[in-house]
Amino acid sequence: MPAQGDEIETLIATMARLPGLGPRSARRVVLHLIRKRAGQMTQLAALMANVAENARECLVCGNITQSDICPICEDPSRASGEICVVTDVADLWALERGRAFRGRYHVLGGSLSALDEIGPDDLRIPQLIDRIADENITEVILALSATVEGQTTAHYIAEALAPTAVAVTGLAQGVPIGGELDYLDDGTITAALRARRRL
Amino acid sequence: MPAQGDEIETLIATMARLPGLGPRSARRVVLHLIRKRAGQMTQLAALMANVAENARECLVCGNITQSDICPICEDPSRASGEICVVTDVADLWALERGRAFRGRYHVLGGSLSALDEIGPDDLRIPQLIDRIADENITEVILALSATVEGQTTAHYIAEALAPTAVAVTGLAQGVPIGGELDYLDDGTITAALRARRRL
Repeated sequence: MPAQGDEIETLIATMARLPGLGPRSARRVVLHLIRKRAGQMTQLAALMANVAENARECLVCGNITQSDICPICEDPSRASGEICVVTDVADLWALERGRAFRGRYHVLGGSLSALDEIGPDDLRIPQLIDRIADENITEVILALSATVEGQTTAHYIAEALAPTAVAVTGLAQGVPIGGELDYLDDGTITAALRARRRL
Repeated sequence: MPAQGDEIETLIATMARLPGLGPRSARRVVLHLIRKRAGQMTQLAALMANVAENARECLVCGNITQSDICPICEDPSRASGEICVVTDVADLWALERGRAFRGRYHVLGGSLSALDEIGPDDLRIPQLIDRIADENITEVILALSATVEGQTTAHYIAEALAPTAVAVTGLAQGVPIGGELDYLDDGTITAALRARRRL
């Protein structure tokens, strides 16, 4: 029997399996929560139970939210005619933190991959095509990763949308803000040089 | 309103305040849990609620456990007459993982510190002295940190126990297992050299 009793041990073992945590950080978190238990652990448990019960995918865009339609899809001020296509919910949240985009999103839920047998119907690509017809969309921004899978997916969507009147754009590639040329890989430097612009 | 709804945002913000986590890892953990929600988040919430309700300090040694007396203090096979004194519950758990010690523990709950105005009565030192009389203790092992506060505390306890017949010992200091001399600090090398032993 573990020194701290079975239930605390189970909690530590469960937390240790979360991404980015391990046994050491799980123990640290659990001890911290037990010490501050005037509220914090109970509150966290209640929050988790609530989110576990209510979190679901937005029926329109695939964002994770607590209602059938997410706050972004429900916001009338964001019906700008622009859809930003992302691979994953984490990417959507990252773009929202940047506050630069005021249109709506579409989460694919992955990238096309012949190796993993992920085809267009495994992603939310058919739903994207339906939305373009339904929502009076004029521009689709493909905010996909600059990896082989991301670019294959981008290419497929651009092809699929070619017959429509919608403009398909992609994120600019170049030097990241604060990036030092010295530390950049050759591909990024080449892309930034090719896409140079007049100041 | 955040993209993912207020409750998910609150959960992320609460988790981001845990030690070792930040906003980025909290988002990653929450997304992971939502995706695997066929059980894992609900289970974690239930475990937390249970531990939050039941976790308490062992009335004898100060270990954190779910009963009034912890499994170690209840185990009759561990009544060896040895008490290992540690600063913190985390230290007790670390020693238990080593499986080298088969006696019982005593958690001080901190170190003596003139700066922070922590005196003997703020720690569980009086309880330690009571236990030595009550439990037929022959040896007290001071497993305290090799810091100024830890060594001050060790010195204070050794002085307090001097009138009793109990043997007071401390952890050996020296080269850690797997340690390379090259990377060790001078203090450790000096201590290891002074405490050298015949092979």
